[in-house]
Amino acid sequence: MGRLDDYPIPRLFWPGWKMADNKQDSLRSLDVLLRPDSVAILGASSDPRKIGGMPVAFSRRGKYSGRLYPVNPNQKIVQDIPAYETLADVPEPVDLAVIALPAAAVPGSVKDAISQGARSIAVFSSGFAELGGNGAEMQRNIEEQCRLANIPLLGPNCLGYFGVQSGLYLTFSTVLDQNWPNAGPIGLASQSGAFSTYYYAMAAGRGLGFSHVIATGNEADVDVAECLSWLAEDENTKVIVACLEGCRDGDRLRDAFDRAAVNNKPVIIMKVGASEVGAAAAASHTGALAGADRIYDVVFEEHGVYRARSINELVNVSYACATGKLPRSRRLGILTTSGGLGVLMADEASRRNIELPAISPEAAKEIKEVIPFAATNNPIDATAHIVNDFPTFSRIVNAMMQGGSFDSIIIFLQQLGKSPIYAELLSPVLLDIRKQFPELMIILCMGASVEFRQTMEAAGILLYEDPVDAVASVDAASRLAARRIPDRTRQTVRFSGSKTPAQQIALAEDKAKQALAVAGIPFISERKAESQAEAVAAATEIGFPVAMKILSADIMHKSDIGGVKLDLESAANVQRAWDDIMKSAGATMPEANIDGVLISKMAPEGVEIVMGVHRDPIFGLMTMVGLGGKYVEIFNDVAFRSASASREIARDMIDSLQSVALLRGARGQPPVDVERLIDILVALSEYALTVPQLSSVEINPYIATANGGVAVDALVMVISESE
Amino acid sequence: MGRLDDYPIPRLFWPGWKMADNKQDSLRSLDVLLRPDSVAILGASSDPRKIGGMPVAFSRRGKYSGRLYPVNPNQKIVQDIPAYETLADVPEPVDLAVIALPAAAVPGSVKDAISQGARSIAVFSSGFAELGGNGAEMQRNIEEQCRLANIPLLGPNCLGYFGVQSGLYLTFSTVLDQNWPNAGPIGLASQSGAFSTYYYAMAAGRGLGFSHVIATGNEADVDVAECLSWLAEDENTKVIVACLEGCRDGDRLRDAFDRAAVNNKPVIIMKVGASEVGAAAAASHTGALAGADRIYDVVFEEHGVYRARSINELVNVSYACATGKLPRSRRLGILTTSGGLGVLMADEASRRNIELPAISPEAAKEIKEVIPFAATNNPIDATAHIVNDFPTFSRIVNAMMQGGSFDSIIIFLQQLGKSPIYAELLSPVLLDIRKQFPELMIILCMGASVEFRQTMEAAGILLYEDPVDAVASVDAASRLAARRIPDRTRQTVRFSGSKTPAQQIALAEDKAKQALAVAGIPFISERKAESQAEAVAAATEIGFPVAMKILSADIMHKSDIGGVKLDLESAANVQRAWDDIMKSAGATMPEANIDGVLISKMAPEGVEIVMGVHRDPIFGLMTMVGLGGKYVEIFNDVAFRSASASREIARDMIDSLQSVALLRGARGQPPVDVERLIDILVALSEYALTVPQLSSVEINPYIATANGGVAVDALVMVISESE
Repeated sequence: MGRLDDYPIPRLFWPGWKMADNKQDSLRSLDVLLRPDSVAILGASSDPRKIGGMPVAFSRRGKYSGRLYPVNPNQKIVQDIPAYETLADVPEPVDLAVIALPAAAVPGSVKDAISQGARSIAVFSSGFAELGGNGAEMQRNIEEQCRLANIPLLGPNCLGYFGVQSGLYLTFSTVLDQNWPNAGPIGLASQSGAFSTYYYAMAAGRGLGFSHVIATGNEADVDVAECLSWLAEDENTKVIVACLEGCRDGDRLRDAFDRAAVNNKPVIIMKVGASEVGAAAAASHTGALAGADRIYDVVFEEHGVYRARSINELVNVSYACATGKLPRSRRLGILTTSGGLGVLMADEASRRNIELPAISPEAAKEIKEVIPFAATNNPIDATAHIVNDFPTFSRIVNAMMQGGSFDSIIIFLQQLGKSPIYAELLSPVLLDIRKQFPELMIILCMGASVEFRQTMEAAGILLYEDPVDAVASVDAASRLAARRIPDRTRQTVRFSGSKTPAQQIALAEDKAKQALAVAGIPFISERKAESQAEAVAAATEIGFPVAMKILSADIMHKSDIGGVKLDLESAANVQRAWDDIMKSAGATMPEANIDGVLISKMAPEGVEIVMGVHRDPIFGLMTMVGLGGKYVEIFNDVAFRSASASREIARDMIDSLQSVALLRGARGQPPVDVERLIDILVALSEYALTVPQLSSVEINPYIATANGGVAVDALVMVISESE
Repeated sequence: MGRLDDYPIPRLFWPGWKMADNKQDSLRSLDVLLRPDSVAILGASSDPRKIGGMPVAFSRRGKYSGRLYPVNPNQKIVQDIPAYETLADVPEPVDLAVIALPAAAVPGSVKDAISQGARSIAVFSSGFAELGGNGAEMQRNIEEQCRLANIPLLGPNCLGYFGVQSGLYLTFSTVLDQNWPNAGPIGLASQSGAFSTYYYAMAAGRGLGFSHVIATGNEADVDVAECLSWLAEDENTKVIVACLEGCRDGDRLRDAFDRAAVNNKPVIIMKVGASEVGAAAAASHTGALAGADRIYDVVFEEHGVYRARSINELVNVSYACATGKLPRSRRLGILTTSGGLGVLMADEASRRNIELPAISPEAAKEIKEVIPFAATNNPIDATAHIVNDFPTFSRIVNAMMQGGSFDSIIIFLQQLGKSPIYAELLSPVLLDIRKQFPELMIILCMGASVEFRQTMEAAGILLYEDPVDAVASVDAASRLAARRIPDRTRQTVRFSGSKTPAQQIALAEDKAKQALAVAGIPFISERKAESQAEAVAAATEIGFPVAMKILSADIMHKSDIGGVKLDLESAANVQRAWDDIMKSAGATMPEANIDGVLISKMAPEGVEIVMGVHRDPIFGLMTMVGLGGKYVEIFNDVAFRSASASREIARDMIDSLQSVALLRGARGQPPVDVERLIDILVALSEYALTVPQLSSVEINPYIATANGGVAVDALVMVISESE
């Protein structure tokens, strides 16, 4: 493999970038912040409707068993609790000081809290980085104070948090008035307070129970990723839900996902800012950098995190995880009392590539014995007859399970759960099925009363009204169950502090190809020519026909400006091509520095592939491969994975392409040498690891042929020190 | 243009096909069936829980004002109504005879009903075509009786229907026990009874009101399409909802859509059987033919029908139509109290290509005056401050409307509608906005109490809890509002009765090209050669390099079997190619009849296009265009429209392709001659109209170049008489 020392890449670093080391920082504990034994509330109010009053009122209602110290210079008693004039009067250094005061008073209060020995700080107040200017300055001030004191800071401009099992409600969210939480398995962390309360209210309305709900606001210090890590270790949390608008530290987020995986807790995430419009709106109100949205998808998928696209979906999937069993496979059995609804579910299963395996002939026969007119392909349509004879139900489900080896089952039962008479007949049958198949993900699709629903959920049976939601939950749950902890080698370059994008420069094409050739990438044979005469000589040496391409670090899309000529079959053609290229370059890009042309052998026939590695500012090096040439922009049929790519990953990437059929030999063409393509992709991915200042490397096209392949063009971009 | 008489296409017709004429049949009225003044119920029961008892009980509860005659040989009184021993005893010939008897008794009862002068018949009983065999035979029997008597037949195996305004409930759906309907604008027709009741229950639970709910069951005669036509003319129905598993008569369905359009009633449809699995399941329990699902999409789009993919979506969109105003444009303004939720909605708007235009600088300034920290790009983030000062709200909405010319607006208001205090403050402000902008589609995204929701809905303000649902409803509503009645020339070939697919045969390639050339399609110059010597002569005449292709009606994918050789540059090459081709054809398809080879000029460089017309068995001729060559199967980037294609339609089709960028000149290539491509597509589409027995015609590839283009290969399939 090529090493950095082997070739002369200018050693350029941009000071805003720093290298991250590969070992994970050992995390500080957020216990003092999120599970404190003692809390002081600066700005505590006697009015339970005020920002400083709600945390006191809610925590009393929650029966917080720790020590709560209201601090208010004008009150002796706040909501029946003795209050203190200043933090200095509080009888102990507290685990957590909550600040609910006007922004201007916050820096001084932080200073006081630190000097009084507070072990963590949460700031509710707004008026900081979200306003820019002086607000941003104040935020840097309190961030710096906490960093020097080595204590965690939540906020500012945050809605706070609550812990249901501890009974501590350090939040001023009015949503609790209407929706007091039940204890349960869901831990939620969100930048946006409004998002956290909205999701919370919808999920609570659905009957879901919570462990912790945390809003991180401006994230001067503690961010969602760190909270996720903490939730991954929290014993009350079994399912983790998060909302992100961006992420500043990809490694920390990956680490949180890995901790959740190790502790077997599914992670369901909503990441907003997917569109350009959305990202612009996100940038307008948070300080976080939004990485390219597609890279988030890659990272989520690599870590087995499920990304929801709506709050309904977030609720549906967290509900599935909280109540149900995650299925070990995507083998789904559908039992329906209505053909039409069965078809609807089969359509959705097909759209999501969920398997609907046929049951065995014996099982089909068994079902036909019970209901002669049943359709016994999957979906199994037992027809409405079943409704009049629930015990047959159990027999049918048993036959299905024996004959289909399903890990999940959806049973469509119309609106029966709304009728008290039917509900009473149904319950024991369903609970019996639950007992017989303790590991099965059982989903009822039906209308039901609250009581019926709760009875089922208590037994670990899921209930969705919408059939498409039911199928979608099988999809999500089986994806979550298939998660494994990725074995990865990463090297991340992070932004540290500055948001200014780094200046990038392209290496000269010949230098770039030389470096890549050393790394094991085979390029088509070519010669540099600095004059028309040299061009003719080079073409003669290589052998006609040849291609000619302008050589200039300033011109990126060479064919767009007429800088590429193909199939030149004679010296005269080469001379004319030189003139044409120089003329169009002079006309379209008069300031470009032109180093001459490259004369190369004409590329063989084959499949044009694009491949590359780029350094995502949040998540580090990403390998990419896809259909190349002019189709790149049109079909965008490319796959990304974190670098470096193993052969297995490279193969997965190639297999995931829509155009993989071309590589396998479409329409009578021979298949291309995919093993060689994998070699090249792995080599490129490893090359990228050896160049610390690499911004991106791209080969386009690599022509994959039956007997190997050859790279035609390459571009290497590095990060420059100059602005 | 080419005419059928101009060239020798064998005149083959398959007797199962018949030509439909282009003028619409004048529809019979279903009033006697669906709005009868007198109804006899054969099998009426005193038990209101039985199939024959429920219609009596429900219609009494509904206060049906017409004349209801229970018929039961064993009862003098049925549910307090005088009963009749036989239909002959009923004092008048009835508009409708409902039959709720065992299947075996149905044919005789139909005969009696007809002889007693019944003007329509509905059969609840199951045991007909859904069972095949004798059941199918009985169904044909009753269908035939009604056809000869010229009266409409609903069912058999159907759940019946109800009309809320008339109070007539001729159904045995138990869903009515828990969900008695409110009168309202929604008319529903569905093949599946279970589907109709499930949708009905979910929609009724959402507060939607209904006019008619009709389930058509086995559709021996009356089908969903005919019911849709009737609902399109029904004065109580303002919004039409349908569920289809298939359709037997595309013209009738199109006609229903057109009637709905003329009467300005939005149509929202669920068509199941989109996947192969789904279609197989659909086929297993209905007698209807499922056309290719993609063609349904084309027809729905052409007629401005919205296709929902889940019952939730069907409810959401019908709710939008029932309560709201359909927006005249896709200009959406979003006002939010939370940045994160605004971003989520912006993401969804972007995914759906909904416009979020910026407001004017004056409007932005006005908003900043009210809330200095507001973000004034669209979404407009008024922050949570607005919650403390609702009157400012009205000012902000006014500024938005003046500065943005929106036709729809979404206002995100957290969970405020659940708090009685906030709800009381909010209501007058929102109702005032409603008054000020009577044509605006106003959508609230919030949690709310039933009372608050109903107050808003009564004023025509929509309320969704999920932000993505809110944006999706703008998408659906603006699509429905943009509907226009298509100006089309169609010629449909229908299956009549038999489900046996027609035998198709391919015209010989030279014949096909000859016919298409007459129709105006330019082919690359070529010669037929029946021997090696003729091949060399033809190549010499055309000029090297040439292509050689095997000529055989039996071999469809010629390159797959090595039957195509390109770039033959000499007589020797031609000779060798002949040998190679004949050898591989002999090896792979020894039974194929081989007529020789075609020698043709090598095709120019350009963009490979596929185009064609095929006859869909349900919806008739469909024109298609897309990216051709080996990419057809891989990217499936093709567009379909009903034939014949006008220049405008052809242009739309081309513009809708992902690969249109290739035609416009990607990566420095010159744009191709799109006008010429449109000419060719129109000519092909019109050619198809002139060939009654045409099954499909396809040109692949047509090479589009900067100066025109040329067709290289063509395939014409016609319907054969032989099985």
